[in-house]
Amino acid sequence: MSPKAETYEKLTREYRDIATLGTCEAILSWDEVTYMPEGGAEHRANQKALLAGMFHQKATSPAIGNWLSELESSELAKNGHPQAANVRELRRQYDKMVKLPESLVTEITRVTSLAHPIWVEARKKNDFKSFLPSLEKIIELCRQKADAIGYKEQPYDALLDDYEPNTTSAQVERVFSALRADLVPVLEKIVGGTKKSPVEIVERSYPQAAQQAFSEHAAAAIGYNFGTGRLDVTTHPFCTQIGPGDVRITTRYNEKRFNDAFFGVLHEAGHGIYEQNLRRDEFGLPTGEACSLGIHESQSRMWENFVGRSHAFWEHFFPAAQKHFPEALGKVSVDDFHFAVNDVRPSFIRVEADEVTYNLHIMLRFEMELALIRGDLQAKDAPAAWNEKFKNYFGLQVKNDAQGCLQDVHWSAGLFGYFPTYALGNLFAAQFFAKADTDLGGLHAQFRKGQFEPLRKWLTDKIHVHGRRYPAPELVQQVTGKPLSAEPLITYLKGKFYPLYGAK
Amino acid sequence: MSPKAETYEKLTREYRDIATLGTCEAILSWDEVTYMPEGGAEHRANQKALLAGMFHQKATSPAIGNWLSELESSELAKNGHPQAANVRELRRQYDKMVKLPESLVTEITRVTSLAHPIWVEARKKNDFKSFLPSLEKIIELCRQKADAIGYKEQPYDALLDDYEPNTTSAQVERVFSALRADLVPVLEKIVGGTKKSPVEIVERSYPQAAQQAFSEHAAAAIGYNFGTGRLDVTTHPFCTQIGPGDVRITTRYNEKRFNDAFFGVLHEAGHGIYEQNLRRDEFGLPTGEACSLGIHESQSRMWENFVGRSHAFWEHFFPAAQKHFPEALGKVSVDDFHFAVNDVRPSFIRVEADEVTYNLHIMLRFEMELALIRGDLQAKDAPAAWNEKFKNYFGLQVKNDAQGCLQDVHWSAGLFGYFPTYALGNLFAAQFFAKADTDLGGLHAQFRKGQFEPLRKWLTDKIHVHGRRYPAPELVQQVTGKPLSAEPLITYLKGKFYPLYGAK
Repeated sequence: MSPKAETYEKLTREYRDIATLGTCEAILSWDEVTYMPEGGAEHRANQKALLAGMFHQKATSPAIGNWLSELESSELAKNGHPQAANVRELRRQYDKMVKLPESLVTEITRVTSLAHPIWVEARKKNDFKSFLPSLEKIIELCRQKADAIGYKEQPYDALLDDYEPNTTSAQVERVFSALRADLVPVLEKIVGGTKKSPVEIVERSYPQAAQQAFSEHAAAAIGYNFGTGRLDVTTHPFCTQIGPGDVRITTRYNEKRFNDAFFGVLHEAGHGIYEQNLRRDEFGLPTGEACSLGIHESQSRMWENFVGRSHAFWEHFFPAAQKHFPEALGKVSVDDFHFAVNDVRPSFIRVEADEVTYNLHIMLRFEMELALIRGDLQAKDAPAAWNEKFKNYFGLQVKNDAQGCLQDVHWSAGLFGYFPTYALGNLFAAQFFAKADTDLGGLHAQFRKGQFEPLRKWLTDKIHVHGRRYPAPELVQQVTGKPLSAEPLITYLKGKFYPLYGAK
Repeated sequence: MSPKAETYEKLTREYRDIATLGTCEAILSWDEVTYMPEGGAEHRANQKALLAGMFHQKATSPAIGNWLSELESSELAKNGHPQAANVRELRRQYDKMVKLPESLVTEITRVTSLAHPIWVEARKKNDFKSFLPSLEKIIELCRQKADAIGYKEQPYDALLDDYEPNTTSAQVERVFSALRADLVPVLEKIVGGTKKSPVEIVERSYPQAAQQAFSEHAAAAIGYNFGTGRLDVTTHPFCTQIGPGDVRITTRYNEKRFNDAFFGVLHEAGHGIYEQNLRRDEFGLPTGEACSLGIHESQSRMWENFVGRSHAFWEHFFPAAQKHFPEALGKVSVDDFHFAVNDVRPSFIRVEADEVTYNLHIMLRFEMELALIRGDLQAKDAPAAWNEKFKNYFGLQVKNDAQGCLQDVHWSAGLFGYFPTYALGNLFAAQFFAKADTDLGGLHAQFRKGQFEPLRKWLTDKIHVHGRRYPAPELVQQVTGKPLSAEPLITYLKGKFYPLYGAK
């Protein structure tokens, strides 16, 4: 073995250990919200803090920096090879971790831990003022974080980079502004259409056991592997990789609403399918990790909406749905059911939003975040700014902050920069889906026959196996032959919802 | 703070971290046998190996040795104070870990990992020969381990010390030989009695959901706290401390046998009650840990047998049992049910043995282990030796090694020295129970009224709160005023089973 190859080996072993330590933290977090008895909370915090400290110590060890420098000066870092991508991405990661002072990391953890219950209470009582001091502190800490990491154009870029690396605020603004320009009139046409969704169908009685059985049936059918995964119940649904061969998803059940659990499971299964098809032999290295949160979200939204809310999907699955829910669906037609799961209407709460309005919710938040981090908007003025934007986007008057700027957990957790990845996910999904549809010769015909494996395999071959080898913008270009644009999403939405709603 | 107090603080903080790391391993192990998807096995082994390595590194750090030396030369180590006990026990622990070469630890792990499936197969096929090479290697490694640790009288003492510290083989032999002398004639009298247990009652249909509900009801009633615990299903029942405030138990259900799950849950709940009542503020230190496996087993066997198989217990619980199992128990009397759960008969399998014969199974194994480790018995001659002893103890002819010397997992796992703690547990339990009965003025009258808290509190005050402050032999002396002896157990067995079986 050459000295460089030996160094690469050492680096690989070290990052496998670091990642393995991270997965130990993942099982602690998973257990915390699934099965841990309430008395375990205090010690669980100690366990997580201990592992986090060990993780940080290992991930910032000077040895790693030296190995990287050594490799960077070698051929290995220059040849467009997967190893070069690993060296490049590990350097990004390492430098960021080293740049962040431990005192700042601790302070952010401390402040956001304290802020969480304050936010919960503020939302419950619709009392923005009680949350304001926390929000101000968090914004200030986020600015400090951005300064510590550094940025070229504006501080928000440094924050965005945690979730959507290699993408700047300016790039996001460009694509969002194109999306906005088209989306608002599209929404108006849909809402003004001649037909109305029979949404009452999905608000009948759906027993939990049948929901679970049917959701698991569908998740398995689209390619989520229960031999390397499982489905549990949590208040907030998520997907977590406990390690290669162990990727778990969760959901919650509402017996009066079909959509929550079923599409939630398809969504998390989409995340899960991505994680289950990452390269196992590259575990711990960037080429064995998801590309970005936006790309991750493209997988979940694709299976949830582009597949799961398509007419073709229900042509295949509706008979099974009727068997699972004979009382609710025995006398319903597949067309009506499909329309019911595709109800579009402006509403206040993001997590309940449909495919069309969802992106408007995100764009509003992105604008708010940009302004707050730039200092163009003061935290105290957030509610007024939110409500004004909401009126502009949705034509609705926000009645209280609980259904306005207090609705999401993200700011209390310090996650400035996270929101844009949700809408980027939709944009990526539309662009990937259109290309897959062309490449595979008509996906809907396959869905009608219950064939989901071709799409799953296409996604694995084109996206999953690369991990973080290519930055997201480059991956999109490579997979679809074009840079990311709003056009495929708009075309998809028009093509699907105009006929459904009798819009022109 | 004095320099010594500062050192003690540092030591405490370090051992809290070490113990916390141990609990991270505990949640990985718990999850592995409860909810982990099968695909997670390989990575789980990696996670556990990584944490085990980190644990070993921390627990053998020279800093700890230095801190201990410093404290040992101070007043703190000499005053009979809890801190002195911690220094004493940490020194024992630390020296043992440092003495064991890492290569030997790794080799034991490797050989026993390989031996496990070989043993499973050998037991299934009743083929001792295929297991013999593994057993020979394991015995040799155990001898090496004993030599590395050191011992005064014989190598087995060093092995026993892992499970029952501060107790020698000679001490165990003394008390076992007294027990054996009395137990064999007692068993003969019981088996030769005029009455026969209506054991068919507990072999009726017992639906799993009702078993779970009733077991949880009883476990909570005797003092197992479900706010800091939970009950799950595993192939091999166990109790595990995930940390202060989180002590979990497991069981398995057999719908054709009432005893397995119900008494299994009481047994594990007994372990759980011990762990739940250790001193939380001493977590990570010996005074916050269980005294020994024998003392641990005394708690589980007490709640399982001395409490759970008593007539008084069923006078309280039988109406609830009838409600949970109306078909099986609707027309059964409490006397018949009590007799049914107290069926005594010589049998081949230890884990299915009753209160009377159980100890004979253990003594047989102890004799075998002593001889194997001493070299008085060759591994290849184990089956013949086992069968001869079995004939002497039980009057039964072992038909094959699967029901003989291959039945237990322990030897394949390298756990030589573990078995005696099971019988020591019964002896401790009898001696503690007799004392509690005197101190609390008649426990059965309390059980009849569903009062289990006085006994639970007595155990906590006398045993749990001390952790490992006193070595087990000293603890028994202190709690009961006498050294450990076989007499209380024999008295208990005669008093309970002679009238039941019409023996004289």
